[in-house]
Amino acid sequence: MADDNQSELPTATVLILRQSGFIGLMEPKLSQKFNLLKAWDSPLPQDQFLTTHARSVQALISSANGPPITTQILHLLPSLKLIATTSAGIDHVDLAECRRRGVAVSNAGKAFAEDAADSAVGLFIDVMRKISASNQYVRDGLWSTRGDYPLGSKIGGKKVGIVGLGNIGFEVAKRLEAFGCSVSYNSRSERPYLSYQFYSNVCELAADSDALIICCALTEQTHHMINKEVLSALGREGWLLM
Amino acid sequence: MADDNQSELPTATVLILRQSGFIGLMEPKLSQKFNLLKAWDSPLPQDQFLTTHARSVQALISSANGPPITTQILHLLPSLKLIATTSAGIDHVDLAECRRRGVAVSNAGKAFAEDAADSAVGLFIDVMRKISASNQYVRDGLWSTRGDYPLGSKIGGKKVGIVGLGNIGFEVAKRLEAFGCSVSYNSRSERPYLSYQFYSNVCELAADSDALIICCALTEQTHHMINKEVLSALGREGWLLM
Repeated sequence: MADDNQSELPTATVLILRQSGFIGLMEPKLSQKFNLLKAWDSPLPQDQFLTTHARSVQALISSANGPPITTQILHLLPSLKLIATTSAGIDHVDLAECRRRGVAVSNAGKAFAEDAADSAVGLFIDVMRKISASNQYVRDGLWSTRGDYPLGSKIGGKKVGIVGLGNIGFEVAKRLEAFGCSVSYNSRSERPYLSYQFYSNVCELAADSDALIICCALTEQTHHMINKEVLSALGREGWLLM
Repeated sequence: MADDNQSELPTATVLILRQSGFIGLMEPKLSQKFNLLKAWDSPLPQDQFLTTHARSVQALISSANGPPITTQILHLLPSLKLIATTSAGIDHVDLAECRRRGVAVSNAGKAFAEDAADSAVGLFIDVMRKISASNQYVRDGLWSTRGDYPLGSKIGGKKVGIVGLGNIGFEVAKRLEAFGCSVSYNSRSERPYLSYQFYSNVCELAADSDALIICCALTEQTHHMINKEVLSALGREGWLLM
């Protein structure tokens, strides 16, 4: 429906600082709707490029693994109204400066949460059932000479502690329940509406878990949260997935 | 409780024809309770060994990947009352001859169904999210030279057809539901109490599915069931797991 009115609107200028696989996938659609300004297409250094070309930029598409959006960059984009990041995380954006300048910031929300959870659970099964390891064993021709690969571990009944019950952690929990795992979690705050057991202390969660799956963002608060003490509490027979 | 009475009962003679990883794991417990007769411990050929030692054998422990339990073997075991197979499948046992001789046959039932389903779903996620393949890509040092590995496929919303909704197929279905897949199935008979869509024809199931997961036993009836026609119906973009 928006398409019908599109021709009447002036085409917004949208800046992308660095090429990436995901932005590359979106490019054809973006080019149809916006005047795309691609910093990597220019031989100029980034600051000089922005000074020369970016006065009219109204929106910026960024990603967590692209260049950080600093005060300095924001200063070179006086018409900027929106930063859209393709990532769930927004710690690469100077939010205080955006607030000051009235620049809106949007992120991917929970768009990737299910896929991240699928992969996390896939890795969990891989480790427990030794899928990659036994695959490699067979490919290396060891099955015929050394015999059967050691058995994997049963997944049903395992006590799994989830560190960080955000969008991803919640989706991981939902999936693990279907495998018959018993789910507990540590998070900034308890979710009383969920039946999973809450631990305010990561060490206590680790001590009561067969496996820990780390689903929290890497921030100053969570940096080195999984320390020697947590690993000792988890024990030598424990599994850790991050 | 059974332990208290055990010493009063005569110890049964239990025959094992071939050593295997799983039977090896059970051996210590079995030796405590039974008089174990291990065919592989003897230098005699199997038939000669049985003729010489097996007249008193009351039970036989076998597995699907061990030697088939033929009429000839059964003939050499006149005291046999029970064949316990460690597998879910019992097609390695001559059931007609067992019936004729009054020999009971027990199998593993659904003891392995959850583990088999865990592994099947693990392989499904592995293929969809390209876990093994991208792991190999990174280990081969290609990430730095050739860039990001191609993206995987979303699991949520995929239409998955399960061929054979027995113990394993049902456990696979339960897990896939938690991933947001839409499950349909083909089976010898419809299960009206389940909400999954039933297809009496494997080809029609394949045509309506993004992926097929084969969970049925290999029998004369299912041999070559997944033929050219089924693969064509599934299509070039389809996934097949067995």
